[in-house]
Amino acid sequence: MSIFTGLSSFVLTPMNEQRIDESSFSKLIQRLANAKVDSMGVMGSTGNYAYLSREERKRVLELAVDAADGVPLITSIGAVRTRQVLELAEDAQKVGAKALLLAPVSYQKLREEEVWALYKTVCANISVPLCIYDTPSTTQFVFSDELHTRLAQLPNVAAIKLPGVPSIPADERLATERIARLRQLIPDHVAIGISHDIRVAPGLNGGCDVWFSVLGGLFPRMCQDMVEMARSGQHEQLTAASETLAPLWSLFEQYGDLRVTATLASMLGLTAVDNLPLPLRPLDAPAAAQLEAIIPLLY
Amino acid sequence: MSIFTGLSSFVLTPMNEQRIDESSFSKLIQRLANAKVDSMGVMGSTGNYAYLSREERKRVLELAVDAADGVPLITSIGAVRTRQVLELAEDAQKVGAKALLLAPVSYQKLREEEVWALYKTVCANISVPLCIYDTPSTTQFVFSDELHTRLAQLPNVAAIKLPGVPSIPADERLATERIARLRQLIPDHVAIGISHDIRVAPGLNGGCDVWFSVLGGLFPRMCQDMVEMARSGQHEQLTAASETLAPLWSLFEQYGDLRVTATLASMLGLTAVDNLPLPLRPLDAPAAAQLEAIIPLLY
Repeated sequence: MSIFTGLSSFVLTPMNEQRIDESSFSKLIQRLANAKVDSMGVMGSTGNYAYLSREERKRVLELAVDAADGVPLITSIGAVRTRQVLELAEDAQKVGAKALLLAPVSYQKLREEEVWALYKTVCANISVPLCIYDTPSTTQFVFSDELHTRLAQLPNVAAIKLPGVPSIPADERLATERIARLRQLIPDHVAIGISHDIRVAPGLNGGCDVWFSVLGGLFPRMCQDMVEMARSGQHEQLTAASETLAPLWSLFEQYGDLRVTATLASMLGLTAVDNLPLPLRPLDAPAAAQLEAIIPLLY
Repeated sequence: MSIFTGLSSFVLTPMNEQRIDESSFSKLIQRLANAKVDSMGVMGSTGNYAYLSREERKRVLELAVDAADGVPLITSIGAVRTRQVLELAEDAQKVGAKALLLAPVSYQKLREEEVWALYKTVCANISVPLCIYDTPSTTQFVFSDELHTRLAQLPNVAAIKLPGVPSIPADERLATERIARLRQLIPDHVAIGISHDIRVAPGLNGGCDVWFSVLGGLFPRMCQDMVEMARSGQHEQLTAASETLAPLWSLFEQYGDLRVTATLASMLGLTAVDNLPLPLRPLDAPAAAQLEAIIPLLY
């Protein structure tokens, strides 16, 4: 079965200006292993891959493999230079990642033909499945459906991680149509995943195969329940469950899911308060108070 | 006199997948030294700072100091982590940069208070002038006038590098008003610079103190002439000179000034054809043909 199915829990890499908090990181991984999530995303955007050196990324992945108890790991190989991406792909495969995640990371926003050439080169040089990481909020690059279609034919491409915003409309009927349209354009073996938690209901109810979840990195059981609702056709229940979390989604929209999740992790006592690389900061006091009020909704 | 005056020529760092082309780089610097430009921007966006390691950035700056014949050098210390920025600032000052350039580089788009804290920390830890590098096309961060005003009060802040697009309107009257408004908000000793060559006429005619020029990295004499037109009040001549370059500005808009300039450098025989880090590519053949037709306009 594809690794790109069900709940893929994306986990923080807690760090401060001195070091990576290895022991907290390993505990975060163990919690997810205990919950038996379908897969884990290590050093995705939530895991701050873009803030770590090659050596640090290798080390964090080694820690994850040690703590994951066999749950398959997906990791990002994104970097601004193609040669760095190839090095990271080699490291990740050696250490034991079961799949790779690649966004068109850039300083100079990339052109469509540059993105195509990047993926073509990488796909010819790896031997594990790759997920196209469509994340315009960090890369500024907007994939056309035509480019997704071309990329989905490349060897080793096994999934597309769609941004909830703006790719998946909040309206469930429109989301279903949008996902069905993309489904028709790409081979059957290529999974479609939803990544912004805020759009989990239209995404999973609309036919996505996998939920790449930030919230699932801290609350795996709740997120597994939501995936199960979609799987068993309880679409209205999933919609209602997501609506219950509206105050959380509102913070995600205002502050970004990374800052909210990092603050949540420290509130839950899972990491120190300083867990993000400067200049990134956790929530300010008023937002943290709002977040604290939401914790009883989560499990 | 401030280093932020007149023509600041931004220079390519030619490189391929194997190495930095040190000898071509040194020659590019020597050409600018011979033209006696007011300053040089080494490893700005045009110099691909974001694609180089700390060690490479130090090495390139050393080469520039050796070849610059006393022309003062400005260099970028931008990086995604505050601690990297501090390290780069230390390296740059030790090697001999006369001023630093800092953009709020990010993977996760920064919030206003994060940007403020970044600049505050950096300004407290340097001893040379700093230029605020406002470049939303690469950082996604949009500076408010209020933030510029706060930042301009920090110790060591000596200039603001404004993006031509969208900050400087193409309409010269509106550009003059916009620059005058910002001028009133910031201390007199803080220079205002224009960075997108495409807006050089509204920028310099509108009162900018310095032109941070990509074209000036290859055609310093032509750009010095344009600066002199603004200085001596020949505003209509500058507008006309810029209008003559409309076909070039059109390529800048469509392909980005970096790709156009890199292609120009190789066409002029100043670098090898491969001079950009993958996945960045030079112009495709039809655009290169258009560019070739423009060369007779340049000197």
